[in-house]
Amino acid sequence: MTSHPSPTTELPAPTAARSPDEQARVASLIRSIFSERIPFNQLLGLQVLSIERNEIGFDMRPELVGHFEYGRLHGGVISATLDVVGSFGLMNAIAIRHPTDTVEQIGARFKKMGTVDLRVDYLRSGQGKTFLASAEVTRLGRRIGSTRMTLHNDSGVLIATGAAVYVIS
Amino acid sequence: MTSHPSPTTELPAPTAARSPDEQARVASLIRSIFSERIPFNQLLGLQVLSIERNEIGFDMRPELVGHFEYGRLHGGVISATLDVVGSFGLMNAIAIRHPTDTVEQIGARFKKMGTVDLRVDYLRSGQGKTFLASAEVTRLGRRIGSTRMTLHNDSGVLIATGAAVYVIS
Amino acid sequence: MTSHPSPTTELPAPTAARSPDEQARVASLIRSIFSERIPFNQLLGLQVLSIERNEIGFDMRPELVGHFEYGRLHGGVISATLDVVGSFGLMNAIAIRHPTDTVEQIGARFKKMGTVDLRVDYLRSGQGKTFLASAEVTRLGRRIGSTRMTLHNDSGVLIATGAAVYVIS
Amino acid sequence: MTSHPSPTTELPAPTAARSPDEQARVASLIRSIFSERIPFNQLLGLQVLSIERNEIGFDMRPELVGHFEYGRLHGGVISATLDVVGSFGLMNAIAIRHPTDTVEQIGARFKKMGTVDLRVDYLRSGQGKTFLASAEVTRLGRRIGSTRMTLHNDSGVLIATGAAVYVIS
Repeated sequence: MTSHPSPTTELPAPTAARSPDEQARVASLIRSIFSERIPFNQLLGLQVLSIERNEIGFDMRPELVGHFEYGRLHGGVISATLDVVGSFGLMNAIAIRHPTDTVEQIGARFKKMGTVDLRVDYLRSGQGKTFLASAEVTRLGRRIGSTRMTLHNDSGVLIATGAAVYVIS
Repeated sequence: MTSHPSPTTELPAPTAARSPDEQARVASLIRSIFSERIPFNQLLGLQVLSIERNEIGFDMRPELVGHFEYGRLHGGVISATLDVVGSFGLMNAIAIRHPTDTVEQIGARFKKMGTVDLRVDYLRSGQGKTFLASAEVTRLGRRIGSTRMTLHNDSGVLIATGAAVYVIS
Repeated sequence: MTSHPSPTTELPAPTAARSPDEQARVASLIRSIFSERIPFNQLLGLQVLSIERNEIGFDMRPELVGHFEYGRLHGGVISATLDVVGSFGLMNAIAIRHPTDTVEQIGARFKKMGTVDLRVDYLRSGQGKTFLASAEVTRLGRRIGSTRMTLHNDSGVLIATGAAVYVIS
Repeated sequence: MTSHPSPTTELPAPTAARSPDEQARVASLIRSIFSERIPFNQLLGLQVLSIERNEIGFDMRPELVGHFEYGRLHGGVISATLDVVGSFGLMNAIAIRHPTDTVEQIGARFKKMGTVDLRVDYLRSGQGKTFLASAEVTRLGRRIGSTRMTLHNDSGVLIATGAAVYVIS
């Protein structure tokens, strides 16, 4: 209620950067975690589109439909995707903030990450051929990270927005 | 910000009840909608457990896993299920409030229903063999319905709570 | 859960605009409602800064402090302000969408408005001399409006973000 | 997104209890913090009603009104009170979990506490002479605490529900 996290609990900006090789290995790890190694992400068909812009996409498929008449995305597909893209955005930010971490250390940070809570606003019906989710990191502390997320369809219509909090390390 | 919906916008309690036959037909419709006719619900394996207690359940399966090491439910499975059980609870309440509606009219009300927003609190890791989601209707107006939801595992551990708002008719 | 509001439920863009005189009267009404006629807004010291940019501001004062040692804004001041600025942004959008409404009709629309739910993310401690809240309208339907809000201090630090849903008419 | 906090991150139940004297001193501290030492809580008129049941109350007053015609509570009063009662419930739970903490140590834990995010569902208009807020602690970890809250009026009408997450220590 009261004191709210002080800015001093935020991580300092990195003072160094990874070598291009190491950066490629970290990017490859993160891409592999989100696109290949999480069974439910595969069920949804999520694919990392851009690590730089925190973007994940997926195609419409019959199994993702929420209403037997309208052919729209199920709300659960939307909430799942927004949750995933928020954690993806935070992982990218964490990798930048810890430039001396090895690939193994980045992987270990992901394992300890967890969603604390999620809000989704379903703004327009989930119609489209492909969908694009992206995340903005609004807070990157030592223990807590916060993100805002959006989902657009291939016509650029804003389908949903979200906000989430994650425990990080 | 200010005036907040007046209690007078809430629907009056029903003055009549369905015949047992008609009630059985409505229950069968709702059960069929949520367990069989929504593709993504089937992908999750959701099954209506109790219309009286607003309960929906599902079994753990490898595809529902969120982390390649821990065998826990993906957060998206949790958020999707809480969204579904909230709308299921509201449909049950709507059917009671409109006792003279035919089965077709109840079906039409479902088609016009939509989730406005959802919050999920992920309290404990989604470990278990089966999971039970239930909903409490906290508001049933003419245009808006609100619910609070819970998800427990088969050991009775509270995995997650939620809150959601739906447009209804 | 499923069908989600169709884009067709959204209001059409206005086909006419108010005369400058009438527009000034509507702006004056909205300014007066939010800055002068709501007792709790006055207790907080909220002032309309810009109708075009959906901005409301206030000054730090001792009564608004949440912690007896740190001199930071109370979380309740933040949540109240974000709720207010969201409804303010929606009122501005509603006035634009109904260009033939009289000032009285716009006032009547405000009276029927109510917050359905609110989320606030407290990102950084509420320190500053003055604070600026602004809102973006993400959905403007016939019955429901949604907004995303931000709160910055006078150094441009993002203190909090929010999302809210309102019943509108 | 995925792994979610494990139950093992939760604090163990206390193995000892405070002496009645020490318990009274801790209760007195918490009561004083929430009822007297937070300026904005005093502006709202919040009073600790019960530490055992996590209850806080306040009286309707003209300054708390949100609408110049209806005499209802401002939504910001509701959100502020729910935020406060959640942190109050967590402080009570923290005091129980740390039975060997001195009064000073409990005070230090309060100073480091902060709200991470808050959701409020405004269910019915805030009409009444007095209001009662209460909190249920749904998660008490080492770093994160979660609560669900309710607000009732003196007729027992459920005005609002909430959910919040706090950083704790």
